[in-house]
Amino acid sequence: MRIAVYPGSFDPITNGHLDIIKRASKLCDKLIVLVSNNISKKGMFTSSQKANLIIEAVKELSNVEVDCFEGLLVEYVKHNNINAIIRGLRAISDFEMEFQMALLNRKLYNDAETLFLMTSTEYSYLSSSMVKEVFYMEGSISKFVPKCVEIAMKQKIYKGEK
Amino acid sequence: MRIAVYPGSFDPITNGHLDIIKRASKLCDKLIVLVSNNISKKGMFTSSQKANLIIEAVKELSNVEVDCFEGLLVEYVKHNNINAIIRGLRAISDFEMEFQMALLNRKLYNDAETLFLMTSTEYSYLSSSMVKEVFYMEGSISKFVPKCVEIAMKQKIYKGEK
Amino acid sequence: MRIAVYPGSFDPITNGHLDIIKRASKLCDKLIVLVSNNISKKGMFTSSQKANLIIEAVKELSNVEVDCFEGLLVEYVKHNNINAIIRGLRAISDFEMEFQMALLNRKLYNDAETLFLMTSTEYSYLSSSMVKEVFYMEGSISKFVPKCVEIAMKQKIYKGEK
Amino acid sequence: MRIAVYPGSFDPITNGHLDIIKRASKLCDKLIVLVSNNISKKGMFTSSQKANLIIEAVKELSNVEVDCFEGLLVEYVKHNNINAIIRGLRAISDFEMEFQMALLNRKLYNDAETLFLMTSTEYSYLSSSMVKEVFYMEGSISKFVPKCVEIAMKQKIYKGEK
Amino acid sequence: MRIAVYPGSFDPITNGHLDIIKRASKLCDKLIVLVSNNISKKGMFTSSQKANLIIEAVKELSNVEVDCFEGLLVEYVKHNNINAIIRGLRAISDFEMEFQMALLNRKLYNDAETLFLMTSTEYSYLSSSMVKEVFYMEGSISKFVPKCVEIAMKQKIYKGEK
Amino acid sequence: MRIAVYPGSFDPITNGHLDIIKRASKLCDKLIVLVSNNISKKGMFTSSQKANLIIEAVKELSNVEVDCFEGLLVEYVKHNNINAIIRGLRAISDFEMEFQMALLNRKLYNDAETLFLMTSTEYSYLSSSMVKEVFYMEGSISKFVPKCVEIAMKQKIYKGEK
Repeated sequence: MRIAVYPGSFDPITNGHLDIIKRASKLCDKLIVLVSNNISKKGMFTSSQKANLIIEAVKELSNVEVDCFEGLLVEYVKHNNINAIIRGLRAISDFEMEFQMALLNRKLYNDAETLFLMTSTEYSYLSSSMVKEVFYMEGSISKFVPKCVEIAMKQKIYKGEK
Repeated sequence: MRIAVYPGSFDPITNGHLDIIKRASKLCDKLIVLVSNNISKKGMFTSSQKANLIIEAVKELSNVEVDCFEGLLVEYVKHNNINAIIRGLRAISDFEMEFQMALLNRKLYNDAETLFLMTSTEYSYLSSSMVKEVFYMEGSISKFVPKCVEIAMKQKIYKGEK
Repeated sequence: MRIAVYPGSFDPITNGHLDIIKRASKLCDKLIVLVSNNISKKGMFTSSQKANLIIEAVKELSNVEVDCFEGLLVEYVKHNNINAIIRGLRAISDFEMEFQMALLNRKLYNDAETLFLMTSTEYSYLSSSMVKEVFYMEGSISKFVPKCVEIAMKQKIYKGEK
Repeated sequence: MRIAVYPGSFDPITNGHLDIIKRASKLCDKLIVLVSNNISKKGMFTSSQKANLIIEAVKELSNVEVDCFEGLLVEYVKHNNINAIIRGLRAISDFEMEFQMALLNRKLYNDAETLFLMTSTEYSYLSSSMVKEVFYMEGSISKFVPKCVEIAMKQKIYKGEK
Repeated sequence: MRIAVYPGSFDPITNGHLDIIKRASKLCDKLIVLVSNNISKKGMFTSSQKANLIIEAVKELSNVEVDCFEGLLVEYVKHNNINAIIRGLRAISDFEMEFQMALLNRKLYNDAETLFLMTSTEYSYLSSSMVKEVFYMEGSISKFVPKCVEIAMKQKIYKGEK
Repeated sequence: MRIAVYPGSFDPITNGHLDIIKRASKLCDKLIVLVSNNISKKGMFTSSQKANLIIEAVKELSNVEVDCFEGLLVEYVKHNNINAIIRGLRAISDFEMEFQMALLNRKLYNDAETLFLMTSTEYSYLSSSMVKEVFYMEGSISKFVPKCVEIAMKQKIYKGEK
């Protein structure tokens, strides 16, 4: 497996995402973490802010790159000769959605395989939206995200953004 | 089974819906495809536009009619002497939601039965919202919807609507 | 829908099965309740005993017939010009198994549709094996099975069979 | 179990919620029904309106109190020496979400246990949002909510609120 | 909650069971761990062997008792004035089965409530049958069961039993 | 990904297994299809018969090898420097079981990752046990298994084995 892509909205990256990135990076020559925008809702961070936080969080993983992309994932996959799409699975509801996405992607482009890795059980409760909910209710998020993300979220609040 | 109804928001009708319509139409004297509006979100097409696209898509099925209705499905069922409500099932998450709806409808009106048919596995990834997402990201939707729907969607874009 | 079949091992028939039979019989001209043997395990009753208990339990439903069959369900369906296979759904685990069976049957024979009906929530806990377990532990099964089944099960015990 | 809390948005309280409250109140010295606001969407009722409707609905249960709280549930639990968090389960999709919440809460505060009770099967189709949908489509909701809730919903409409 | 029962076949007790016992014992005055025999298959240990291993494993929990029972759980519950039945949940497939059992028990006896607790995520992969499978394949089980259980399993093998 | 293993009981190999083998072989330098015996039930074929059928079925895939092993999978993985364990996913019930297995394997040996691939939807109904059931009921299995398997199964019957 030469090149794999791990796509997501990463708003923001959590320790659960990092766990998948570490596991997947051992299985391929190069892993691209791909920040894609969710067109249907406004996020907390912009694409470039999200990418910069990931770059900081993965800086010790030498074969991991970070990129941003708008559009159909399969187009990115096709134009970059990617062999595999990596997705993390936490639970059944994940699986349903992921399965549907993977089947659609296979229909749109048949030359890349979607590979599912299991998130560690210690992160099975974790999602970007839960992190934001705990944060807005003034709970501590230090166990859930890399340090750089916690600092960036506090700066957002300090600047009066939400 | 004399009269059955296949309700949905059909925004727009997909090849998966068509698959269910063809299967169900063989099991009853008359099948009514019922366009209902989802009050909580604005669709891509109006009710009458959606109905016209379905009329075009099912024109070769002689015992299929198309209708529009706002309000509780069971009221429509009651006033039209309908024996059965048809629903397609793709996956578990579908099933949960569908089960809840069917139990509610049975509680509100006990004289019509909800019948579930399986969508063909080749359409198991397909939904109206996925079609729209692929379309907005400029992917090809020709494998997913009838020709008339593809044309109508392109015209929406051309006119600057979204 | 002219002829539908409701297949099962019915070892023994429960009130949950009866609920499905009543609902399904309203939707077709003739409903055949088909007793099939589970080749992998010995049941409590023989096929003909099971069929006789069903005949007794459905005697007030004029368009319901009872039959026995060994072999592939689709062969029976094909040779009797059956339009639809009826299955009851109680819960998710049912659904998984049922979905797989229905897809297999569609692959083996494409001219009959599998229709799923929901069991009433009051019977959602009920299965033949649970009835037998409660019975062997000397609990009362009168709420779970037709009267004729309860009598037959007690006679089995009285005769020293198990 | 001395003190347990049953948190929710209760917009409005349904007969399914009441069923859980009655069951749970038998298992502890004091049960606090805790109205929490869902920050991401505007409800039909305000927190104090929701609390008043619950107070009316549970007035015959002597060990049940009603309270309102904004913020992280675990903070409320910690400051009130609560032993257990009560949650009702209806179906799989409930379970997924509930499991994730309970794991998060355990991570944030380890001295209270989340206990799941099953909603009666007769209420398995019921949710606050379904009640509101049926109400806005002018169906009868008298089987689904306490009398005081039905009156309050009609007054909302009468006053032109939505 | 005065008296609660935690029933199971415990063949043998695992660290996952112990986790539930510890959590549940904090919520009631007395917790009875109830060893019941699974009539349909022969276990590795006899009821009294299983009970003795549990007694050893829970000896530091002062309000936990161990008992054996054959027959319907609800009979035991009824005759011992038990308020609650405790069950651990690990995953969806657990939930399905547990839900069905709890509904059946409620139907058979309405005065005790089934309470579900979540097993810690670190034990979510653990079951008695998996422990036995790893053991028979000569893998180490020391992370999965209390010390006394590991010793007892090795003695079984030494004596040529299986 | 240098070496991956695809373990299973393969009694017998189906077209669904073959689909996973083809997909997985593109992602690694070498793929080992590993025949393991299910200790709890007697199969239709012996390990070496099963391995020979797989060798025949995969003969055109140059980087696929076939091996047999009894014992804990992680021992095989450890001694052969394997990076990844490949598993195919068809449906939810698969996922539950697979997730549990993968977590156990990670606990027993942390240096290999379990990767899940989706079986094609056209094989989502397929399993070795279903193939055997259709075969014993004298249905055609030619769409479900490689030619060499169909011949071997017919020879078993001819020789009076079952």
